Amino acid sequence: MNNITMKLNADELILAALKEDISSEDVTTNSVMPHYQLGEVELLVKQDGVVAGLDVFKRVFELLDEKTEVTFSKKDGDTVKNGEKIGIIRGDIRVLLSGERTALNYLQRMSGIATYTRSIVALLAGSKTKLLDTRKTTPNMRIFEKYAVKVGGGCNHRYNLSDGILLKDNHIGAAGGVKQAVQMAKAYAPFVRKVEVEVENLEMLKEALEAGADIIMLDNMSVEDMKEAVRLTAGRAETECSGNVTKENIARLVDIGVDYISSGALTHSAPILDLSLKNLHTV
Amino acid sequence: MNNITMKLNADELILAALKEDISSEDVTTNSVMPHYQLGEVELLVKQDGVVAGLDVFKRVFELLDEKTEVTFSKKDGDTVKNGEKIGIIRGDIRVLLSGERTALNYLQRMSGIATYTRSIVALLAGSKTKLLDTRKTTPNMRIFEKYAVKVGGGCNHRYNLSDGILLKDNHIGAAGGVKQAVQMAKAYAPFVRKVEVEVENLEMLKEALEAGADIIMLDNMSVEDMKEAVRLTAGRAETECSGNVTKENIARLVDIGVDYISSGALTHSAPILDLSLKNLHTV
Amino acid sequence: MNNITMKLNADELILAALKEDISSEDVTTNSVMPHYQLGEVELLVKQDGVVAGLDVFKRVFELLDEKTEVTFSKKDGDTVKNGEKIGIIRGDIRVLLSGERTALNYLQRMSGIATYTRSIVALLAGSKTKLLDTRKTTPNMRIFEKYAVKVGGGCNHRYNLSDGILLKDNHIGAAGGVKQAVQMAKAYAPFVRKVEVEVENLEMLKEALEAGADIIMLDNMSVEDMKEAVRLTAGRAETECSGNVTKENIARLVDIGVDYISSGALTHSAPILDLSLKNLHTV
Amino acid sequence: MNNITMKLNADELILAALKEDISSEDVTTNSVMPHYQLGEVELLVKQDGVVAGLDVFKRVFELLDEKTEVTFSKKDGDTVKNGEKIGIIRGDIRVLLSGERTALNYLQRMSGIATYTRSIVALLAGSKTKLLDTRKTTPNMRIFEKYAVKVGGGCNHRYNLSDGILLKDNHIGAAGGVKQAVQMAKAYAPFVRKVEVEVENLEMLKEALEAGADIIMLDNMSVEDMKEAVRLTAGRAETECSGNVTKENIARLVDIGVDYISSGALTHSAPILDLSLKNLHTV
Amino acid sequence: MNNITMKLNADELILAALKEDISSEDVTTNSVMPHYQLGEVELLVKQDGVVAGLDVFKRVFELLDEKTEVTFSKKDGDTVKNGEKIGIIRGDIRVLLSGERTALNYLQRMSGIATYTRSIVALLAGSKTKLLDTRKTTPNMRIFEKYAVKVGGGCNHRYNLSDGILLKDNHIGAAGGVKQAVQMAKAYAPFVRKVEVEVENLEMLKEALEAGADIIMLDNMSVEDMKEAVRLTAGRAETECSGNVTKENIARLVDIGVDYISSGALTHSAPILDLSLKNLHTV
Amino acid sequence: MNNITMKLNADELILAALKEDISSEDVTTNSVMPHYQLGEVELLVKQDGVVAGLDVFKRVFELLDEKTEVTFSKKDGDTVKNGEKIGIIRGDIRVLLSGERTALNYLQRMSGIATYTRSIVALLAGSKTKLLDTRKTTPNMRIFEKYAVKVGGGCNHRYNLSDGILLKDNHIGAAGGVKQAVQMAKAYAPFVRKVEVEVENLEMLKEALEAGADIIMLDNMSVEDMKEAVRLTAGRAETECSGNVTKENIARLVDIGVDYISSGALTHSAPILDLSLKNLHTV
Repeated sequence: MNNITMKLNADELILAALKEDISSEDVTTNSVMPHYQLGEVELLVKQDGVVAGLDVFKRVFELLDEKTEVTFSKKDGDTVKNGEKIGIIRGDIRVLLSGERTALNYLQRMSGIATYTRSIVALLAGSKTKLLDTRKTTPNMRIFEKYAVKVGGGCNHRYNLSDGILLKDNHIGAAGGVKQAVQMAKAYAPFVRKVEVEVENLEMLKEALEAGADIIMLDNMSVEDMKEAVRLTAGRAETECSGNVTKENIARLVDIGVDYISSGALTHSAPILDLSLKNLHTV
Repeated sequence: MNNITMKLNADELILAALKEDISSEDVTTNSVMPHYQLGEVELLVKQDGVVAGLDVFKRVFELLDEKTEVTFSKKDGDTVKNGEKIGIIRGDIRVLLSGERTALNYLQRMSGIATYTRSIVALLAGSKTKLLDTRKTTPNMRIFEKYAVKVGGGCNHRYNLSDGILLKDNHIGAAGGVKQAVQMAKAYAPFVRKVEVEVENLEMLKEALEAGADIIMLDNMSVEDMKEAVRLTAGRAETECSGNVTKENIARLVDIGVDYISSGALTHSAPILDLSLKNLHTV
Repeated sequence: MNNITMKLNADELILAALKEDISSEDVTTNSVMPHYQLGEVELLVKQDGVVAGLDVFKRVFELLDEKTEVTFSKKDGDTVKNGEKIGIIRGDIRVLLSGERTALNYLQRMSGIATYTRSIVALLAGSKTKLLDTRKTTPNMRIFEKYAVKVGGGCNHRYNLSDGILLKDNHIGAAGGVKQAVQMAKAYAPFVRKVEVEVENLEMLKEALEAGADIIMLDNMSVEDMKEAVRLTAGRAETECSGNVTKENIARLVDIGVDYISSGALTHSAPILDLSLKNLHTV
Repeated sequence: MNNITMKLNADELILAALKEDISSEDVTTNSVMPHYQLGEVELLVKQDGVVAGLDVFKRVFELLDEKTEVTFSKKDGDTVKNGEKIGIIRGDIRVLLSGERTALNYLQRMSGIATYTRSIVALLAGSKTKLLDTRKTTPNMRIFEKYAVKVGGGCNHRYNLSDGILLKDNHIGAAGGVKQAVQMAKAYAPFVRKVEVEVENLEMLKEALEAGADIIMLDNMSVEDMKEAVRLTAGRAETECSGNVTKENIARLVDIGVDYISSGALTHSAPILDLSLKNLHTV
Repeated sequence: MNNITMKLNADELILAALKEDISSEDVTTNSVMPHYQLGEVELLVKQDGVVAGLDVFKRVFELLDEKTEVTFSKKDGDTVKNGEKIGIIRGDIRVLLSGERTALNYLQRMSGIATYTRSIVALLAGSKTKLLDTRKTTPNMRIFEKYAVKVGGGCNHRYNLSDGILLKDNHIGAAGGVKQAVQMAKAYAPFVRKVEVEVENLEMLKEALEAGADIIMLDNMSVEDMKEAVRLTAGRAETECSGNVTKENIARLVDIGVDYISSGALTHSAPILDLSLKNLHTV
Repeated sequence: MNNITMKLNADELILAALKEDISSEDVTTNSVMPHYQLGEVELLVKQDGVVAGLDVFKRVFELLDEKTEVTFSKKDGDTVKNGEKIGIIRGDIRVLLSGERTALNYLQRMSGIATYTRSIVALLAGSKTKLLDTRKTTPNMRIFEKYAVKVGGGCNHRYNLSDGILLKDNHIGAAGGVKQAVQMAKAYAPFVRKVEVEVENLEMLKEALEAGADIIMLDNMSVEDMKEAVRLTAGRAETECSGNVTKENIARLVDIGVDYISSGALTHSAPILDLSLKNLHTV
């Protein structure tokens, strides 16, 4: 994760997470370790997968004590195996103990998302179709979860409501039709944004194409209709297929020929990747 | 969720989640709906489960516009069925559209945890053993996730490092032994806290009991050893069994007779419960 | 300004501005007015122009006391004349006095920008060219200043570095060429964003078009070159002309035929529009 | 700008300005520069003037990366010429690119104010009259704008409503007269503050002097009346002349003999000073 | 306490104090009171004194639940007697219980300061000398403690380092002498501030007077020297006497004739006034 | 004070305290010291006592300038004598002057609490009874004041409402009796917390013991009744005696045999310990 994003956007969230876990002090650690003691602990993988979030993991310890040294033998996106030792954290043992849970909570979740994303991306291999995430992220985790999707080989859809336009049925209804909606969006929004329109049938698709939509989202349409939609679009817009896509059900979508398939499951249903800190010792 | 907790502890997190999704404005909605328009939308269940987080869901809309009216036909902890309509949100349509995703992101995750928790609690029915959560929560989601565990029928372990004592191997090592660790904790920590000690074998168990530990965590021990541990403890302390417990593997632990089984999976691996907003219309 | 944007993005800035002006108390007002006293004051225009920011003006008083009533006879975007009374503020006189300066500081600046923007937009009348703002805004005023540009009839360029792509010479250099830069941006950035490339001559223009840039910024090019650039582009991309554009020098750019002209002066050099509060009296 | 003020009062504003410009990440830079690359860029002057805000400019880059080295050949208050290179910024090229706009937005505005202030101070040369700023500053920019006024040779009036007393007509009305207002202010306010009274005619002036006002503001009075006011005051209080003072109309006020002339234009109407970053290169 | 000060300056401190006491939830109350229950509780005085901080006390409950009704039969500055009932709080019993301690912690401390202040002011009765506070306040309590001093009949010295000038020995040394220090302060500081100089002997006093100091602080001088200092000053400046002044030792200072006596003890050593909530009952 | 607690919990409070004292700049210091000047100042004791808060004192200066060097010849808990020099602060003289008051305000208060606590602990010497603090702390000072109690030899009661259970009369009433209240608390609260019950007579005591309370608070009971209560309890629960305990009246409680005596006076009525900075000089 880029240092600037870390400082401007991630740091305050990580700090809030630490305060969530330490609202006054780490009572247990302070009970038995009244003084500074240099130590080391290892970061171990307990499940095969793709690691993501190493910088965030490291940052947790640095925010507790900037002198903590964290080194890794892997980098974000690398495949890791059960049993591998992939990092060493060296510093005040109290910092290692107090930061452990928060650091792992981030790393396990981010690695879980990267692992799950890569497994789906693999199912799309050979096709032109790319995998997209959604805004179905955990509250106050978007910056981390969208990053993990990219580490896993997925692409990011819009970051939030402010940086992308997606005209859904309610927007279209309010505007008075697909054409009007697209025109209003082009008139109102910063001109650097593409205009995406969600369509539910081929009729709406045609309207959207005529109105000059940049992206068409095919929402819960049949495989046949989606194939026809791609044919009709003929490159005049990008196409996205959406609707409860998971690792289990994506196979049927591979041959449709859409540019993108989006899946909320990447961020809301990926299981964590098991990692732990072991072999703490003084040095 | 209690109003006071909502105001003091949840509000700022919910507001941060809204800002995460709207960093300047909802461009799409503002493009096509320049003016106030009263509308309603329904909250629909798309999967059987247990609902949790209705107050949080409601609060999202209230923080955008305090005049939004949200009413439910279910309450937290109720069983809900696929297809049921369980709520109505009435207010400025722009508020309904801009708040939808954040509100659902909270509700789906919290309901998913409650649903998963209840399914495990059911497996413990008939035994004296209670189900506990852990600190393996999503960063900045603990207040919501621990609440959802309780809604699902689970019990809460310590909230964070500041309000509970759990002496692990490293703490015991630093103290010089189980006995010393327990004594140091009792001397240092606020006297209202119980002292829990993690033990890996029966020898450590005996030491912990002699030292006056209030709670013994049996960490990754065999079923036989745990049964012997419960027998040896003989009510002198509460017992907790811990270690990668999930719905799939909990059956073997039911008859051991421990007071508590803790499971990180409740908060880090529960799948979401699918819910959505439908039938938006002006009124 | 939309209520949601006000609550999520503007409120904390307005509150910070109020605290900047009242770090402990309004000593003068508190000296002579120890008690609540209902009063009214009028908002007067002292210079012809376009008003913008009335909701922000109102919000200043509401944040001090939610019972303050502010009513306007004009709305954002309306033309106002020197001497016109365009609003009444009614509430605790102490609130009227303590909020006056902050409310006017926002309104005068936003109205100044809207006025200046409209005067330039008028110079583009009859052409297809639209007027754009830039990121040359006053720190912590962007949400207000970009809104004022729109009120004045201008269009918004990207809001910030996170929601728009603009490949400048340094980015192109780092990427190894225009083509590579465009490809890297398309691969990395959320796919809902257009890719804009800054070019300094016709050679770069051709490269950018071939690489599939969505928008071409013609940076400090001669009028002749820009005309040729528009001809060469032939609708394959949108074109933007940039470089120290002000009311005084925009005339020469009108006939070039670019889609957009951007001007930093809209936000960094617009003079304020003079407005004041007068005729405070008890009621 | 003093380091302590920077840390306690400016840092959080600068950080907020950076977050305003980077709400998730600098997409363009991250697209083409995935890795650290040491580089340098030069700070160039594009317009004659007075530079102010160099420490703030520097701080923007340090807040993104504390290892960024910023060196200047000029200091705040120095005259600078179009074409001069006055600084070098050395660090991760991504930091140089991501911080550029925010750093320049501060420096250009502050230097613009210093330049404009000095040009008016020059018009007062030879007289005893000093130039004052007002509270007509841009919201959340006061600490920077008042500093720039001082750099330009102006003096600061009160910082905000909490640290200075200025009894205006409404305060006097509420108190029941000039005398009562002055007495109430002396009784209520911390005794270390002077009491300033705004008067509109010579009658009020006499009352204010008798009441023991420390400073008299002559508000929108004729030149003749102001001369008479100065004569009548005879050193018993300091005098300040106020009312839409700009570079264009200050000449007529020079010979009146007031101690101070205040001008809102210093902060609300000074044009920016054009500066830019050029010649970015790796090192 | 003024509503504007409450909203802008006190609210965030009160909220922080509430969060300090409720970091996740009020476990005890939530255990036994799962539902809303309207109730009332009385505010009782348990010690004679002067009450101060009733608005702050009230605000604690309103911040937990804006529907809580708090009414008082006394107002700030009133004398209260042991056993008197001076207020009723009506609202959700859970709010009454959860807010009790924080509300009383503020009220007891503020009333303690007002009580102690008034007892010293009484000792100055008949003299022209006024009692001043200092900056020796409890961190993050200044806005409350300085207000309480005023309620008790004392006067406020400067609020903080930003709104008052006090040249001490080190400042004078750095400037090169009293005269230079006064001149530098007058040149640098906003002109609305008075200049105070701390002197330790009559020689320094004379220098300060000649330099035009507005206020002279007589620091730890003998009673005789202070009398002589007042005589020498002869009204050319205000005089302040300072140095470990308490109720026990102030008598010797009454006849000196200084304008002000300052006492840090007002805020750092006033004992609290005992108050409590009693007779909670449902209604 | 532990570094982690300092960073996560104390830093933002200390920073807020500094901003409370410097809302724009230290005008006096900046007037006479425009440039960096290395200097030293000594920390002197002016009253016998126990020092507490040295890390906090040091942190004040570090937050202003991380290069400030603060060294002590004493550590928290050490006895100090009037006249002793116990520390040296070395750094930019402007930092030394601007941080002085805030640093001393913390140190004096914390040392006062430690001193007062130790003096009471001394009165309990020879008995088994330990001294406890309460939640009667100064708002936003709890983390500092509870630490100071421990430095003085006292023990901490619960930190706040979230980490300890104390069933008072109102809770018991709401639950329907002592037995029900204890059961509800055990069912609701995290199981790591002990359950404390406040009793007013021997009848309630018996109920509480039968209900399985972990701690019994004897509230305002007679010495005789308390002795009988201890006898009846017979080690089945811990006992705490409470009610306006001060240094003056604790003697009568020493022989009762309770496990703990709690005293609000430790934090709300301890006089400060006088300390000051002296002998500032350049180096």
